[in-house]
Amino acid sequence: MARASFITLEGGEGVGKSTQLAALAEALRRRGHEVVTTREPGGSEGAEAIRRLLLEGSEERWGAQAEALLFAAARTSHVDSLIRPALARGQWVLCDRFLDSSLAYQGGAGGLGIEAVRELNMFGIADCLPDRTLLLVHPSGAERARHRDGDGADRIGGRSASYHQAVDEAFHALAEAEPNRIRPVDASGSREEVTARLLDALEDLL
Amino acid sequence: MARASFITLEGGEGVGKSTQLAALAEALRRRGHEVVTTREPGGSEGAEAIRRLLLEGSEERWGAQAEALLFAAARTSHVDSLIRPALARGQWVLCDRFLDSSLAYQGGAGGLGIEAVRELNMFGIADCLPDRTLLLVHPSGAERARHRDGDGADRIGGRSASYHQAVDEAFHALAEAEPNRIRPVDASGSREEVTARLLDALEDLL
Ligand SMILES: Nc1ncnc2c1ncn2[C@@H]1O[C@H](COP(=O)(O)OP(=O)(O)OP(=O)(O)O)[C@@H](O)[C@H]1O
Ligand SMILES: Nc1ncnc2c1ncn2[C@@H]1O[C@H](COP(=O)(O)OP(=O)(O)OP(=O)(O)O)[C@@H](O)[C@H]1O
Ligand SMILES: [Mg+2]
Ligand SMILES: [Mg+2]
Repeated sequence: MARASFITLEGGEGVGKSTQLAALAEALRRRGHEVVTTREPGGSEGAEAIRRLLLEGSEERWGAQAEALLFAAARTSHVDSLIRPALARGQWVLCDRFLDSSLAYQGGAGGLGIEAVRELNMFGIADCLPDRTLLLVHPSGAERARHRDGDGADRIGGRSASYHQAVDEAFHALAEAEPNRIRPVDASGSREEVTARLLDALEDLL
Repeated sequence: MARASFITLEGGEGVGKSTQLAALAEALRRRGHEVVTTREPGGSEGAEAIRRLLLEGSEERWGAQAEALLFAAARTSHVDSLIRPALARGQWVLCDRFLDSSLAYQGGAGGLGIEAVRELNMFGIADCLPDRTLLLVHPSGAERARHRDGDGADRIGGRSASYHQAVDEAFHALAEAEPNRIRPVDASGSREEVTARLLDALEDLL
């Protein structure tokens, strides 16, 4: 059996990451893998405490730079406490959002610059990078509307449509720059169709 | 009257920073300056929330990198919410610990490297550097013991003597590298004697 892999799911709000993470974990378990699922920001006691600082309070609570540093701190705690130990035990790790969300949200849409935000994060995570990143790509028009709740309940999900447009563009640029690690996957159609596409994009790791 | 300055007080545990910060603020006010005093980690609502994350909990709660990122996030919030606005209003800012504490504790004693920690911090604080940093230097031997409570009540103050020795050495190296900004001041003798030495080290800014 191939060694355990670290897989991340990325994409904009409501594209289906959490739904597919659960489906993918199930599919991998059926193939005999041990799988740990987790999410960002969060995934460790310390990171969940930072998550509350990030998602609660007013938009003005944190400036862009402070926000990026907090995400990097939470990710570092998550990697140290959960991700590295699980991989060391031979378990697959499936993570709902990771580094690329910081690059797309804070670096791209937030205007801090993708390389500056990458550097902060590399300080904390060092060599713990995903073996594969599955980028769920928003279906367009009517179908996309189906996926959006429009709830915008937290400090970040509630930002403007142009912010979320910039996030999508940044994800696209990241995928073009790292085609081997980041695989765009069409998120339209039924849940089962999407899961099958995601498994295809992991074929070489299985 | 010269423009308002940003002054930081640095030094190891119990050397007299908080006592001298209050005395210095009083002396500057007597000379007609408006003075804001503040402390790190903390100084803004967001930074105080991060302070609690940093100082509470077990030693294992955060690894070295996560700790450094949290300090940098707290500092960024402090600069954005309190320090820059006060300086813009023409007020002096006196701050109990700042950048150099991160460089000496996390960068030097903690082994992350002074330049790596400086880079994280510069991402957040940009050009908001102290005009002068007063480094209170621990008196040696018996007199030093007088200043130490030996309480070690928090996650960082409670570390080993060799950690705190490494902090002192890092502060010393920082002062040698930036002699114009960082002025070592002998912290022995009476409170009044120390305050007079600190004022001398600000003479050119007054
Ligand atoms: N293929 C699909 N067809 C129809 N509805 C779907 C499909 N995939 C997900 N959904 C529904 O769309 C909504 C968003 O899905 P999900 O919560 O998995 O997305 P997400 O990317 O994790 O969103 P968030 O950014 O809010 O975490 C949910 O109500 C989910 O049940
Ligand atoms: N010059 C002095 N002579 C005698 N006692 C002093 C002098 N300066 C400070 N102290 C006492 O030493 C102790 C430590 O002083 P202070 O709290 O100001 O130090 P600090 O550097 O802010 O410490 P901490 O790292 O705990 O914040 C206090 O009890 C204070 O009253
Ligand atoms: Mg989700
Ligand atoms: Mg003090």
